[in-house]
Amino acid sequence: MTTATTTTDFQSWSHVHLQRVEATLRRVLPAPDIAPQRLHQALRYAVLEGGKRVRPLLAFAAGELANADPERVALAGAAVELIHAYSLVHDDLPCMDDDVLRRGKPTCHVEYDEPTALLVGDALHSLAFQVLGDYRLADDAKTQLEMVKLLAAAAGSRGMAGGQAIDLESVGKALTVTELEFMHIHKTGAIIRASALLGARCGSGLGQKELGQIDLFAKLIGLAYQVVDDVLDAEGSTATLGKTAGKDAKDNKPTYVSAIGAARARELAQELRQNALGALAGFGERALRLRQIADFIVLRKF
Amino acid sequence: MTTATTTTDFQSWSHVHLQRVEATLRRVLPAPDIAPQRLHQALRYAVLEGGKRVRPLLAFAAGELANADPERVALAGAAVELIHAYSLVHDDLPCMDDDVLRRGKPTCHVEYDEPTALLVGDALHSLAFQVLGDYRLADDAKTQLEMVKLLAAAAGSRGMAGGQAIDLESVGKALTVTELEFMHIHKTGAIIRASALLGARCGSGLGQKELGQIDLFAKLIGLAYQVVDDVLDAEGSTATLGKTAGKDAKDNKPTYVSAIGAARARELAQELRQNALGALAGFGERALRLRQIADFIVLRKF
Repeated sequence: MTTATTTTDFQSWSHVHLQRVEATLRRVLPAPDIAPQRLHQALRYAVLEGGKRVRPLLAFAAGELANADPERVALAGAAVELIHAYSLVHDDLPCMDDDVLRRGKPTCHVEYDEPTALLVGDALHSLAFQVLGDYRLADDAKTQLEMVKLLAAAAGSRGMAGGQAIDLESVGKALTVTELEFMHIHKTGAIIRASALLGARCGSGLGQKELGQIDLFAKLIGLAYQVVDDVLDAEGSTATLGKTAGKDAKDNKPTYVSAIGAARARELAQELRQNALGALAGFGERALRLRQIADFIVLRKF
Repeated sequence: MTTATTTTDFQSWSHVHLQRVEATLRRVLPAPDIAPQRLHQALRYAVLEGGKRVRPLLAFAAGELANADPERVALAGAAVELIHAYSLVHDDLPCMDDDVLRRGKPTCHVEYDEPTALLVGDALHSLAFQVLGDYRLADDAKTQLEMVKLLAAAAGSRGMAGGQAIDLESVGKALTVTELEFMHIHKTGAIIRASALLGARCGSGLGQKELGQIDLFAKLIGLAYQVVDDVLDAEGSTATLGKTAGKDAKDNKPTYVSAIGAARARELAQELRQNALGALAGFGERALRLRQIADFIVLRKF
């Protein structure tokens, strides 16, 4: 039994759930002594010991709305995190962002080599779907197939990979806030929305309307996350970020800070947070953790 | 109704089924006018108009053993072909094989650019699983989830991506036939086996023993395919191959030709074909197409 204090304590809640997703990631990643060993070591390097795991936490919080078994959500959250980790490894490659630091460590292609990093991304990508196919994550197989479709669509050319392509095309351009929003809804928003929806689909009892509210919440909080990221990138230090700070400006990438300035970007993050919280109004106390995650995302390092 | 002549005519059979998988690929690939347009054009460039589609043909042939609806098999075959196409785009990148010609056309990163090619591979990879999650491919959702798991495992670090990693490590080494076999069972064999098994799982009525025989057939024919590929690469011309000939020797990659010589490699391909045909003994006439594919693979361009 948990006490009233710990159930409302976001720190303890997230600590417990972070441990759960970390253990699940360790379990689904092939052991480092299985052939090909170097690749398997590199997979673990790219995924374990680092990362805020915001996406799995979002899955757990949404799962609580649907009374989902946390063990199921841990697997769904791990699948999302594997997709996220693959995208970071590929984004850091020399032909993309050419970055050397990630989660406070040398990036995968720096620690290993470029072809290995390419394969690490590819193998993590496949592993995410292996997890969704391999374990029981939903009440019925039909729902679970919909989860496969949901994550695949979120990762694909009309989701995350498409957002990356839009990002590539926007380098050196001055985007409007609407154009920036379009890019981020694809690049990071799609996977954040998938995280919340996958968590909710691990449980039961939610109708299309409620799933739609969770999706709206995740969409708004995903945008807020990006706005905050842009502010942190412009103002933060490499040490606190765990990745190279000031990279966007250096790479001539359009950001919310370059589009509307840091002060207005901070306000925008707060507005998005308020609207996100509004989307949860119908859930009452059950949405406590989602509200806390909204605060965690918007108020971090500000 | 088909006549006795056309049902035994492999050319007509494969023509009909190639058209079917081509139409399916066109349908599941996002239209070129959907944003992000350049990425979607590049996806179609990398997949359409080219490729022997051996893997989908294998899926159709195995599907016939299980009386599978060809429309279902076309979707499963398309998913496998999308995985294959993604792997070719990534393998051709400068940090991997650095190749400029594929299927008689400039490789994706040459025609577009390197970051786009990276994203093309990633987006095709996701799209394969979106297809497996989006359409009804099996009699029940549980079987279809097993198909997701099967393809993901075949593509991942203990399948195709792992085979690529072993390939990277083997450059400049003199491998034994056993070591070559281990590499190819991962690098190309896993997806070839998945093709046959996915085709069979689209239908019904096959037990574990029969699926095991199909798997064994595909394993042997996959190895034969690689042996033939090595001979063709050593002896063929760039024009007939549609990809750069003599690339393996130039890249100092171990091949069956370098390991045992071209003459013995030809014999080995025939032995593998005989053993593969042996694995089909229990199926009788129903395995006609699988037998013809074995011949097609081993006897091509010899």
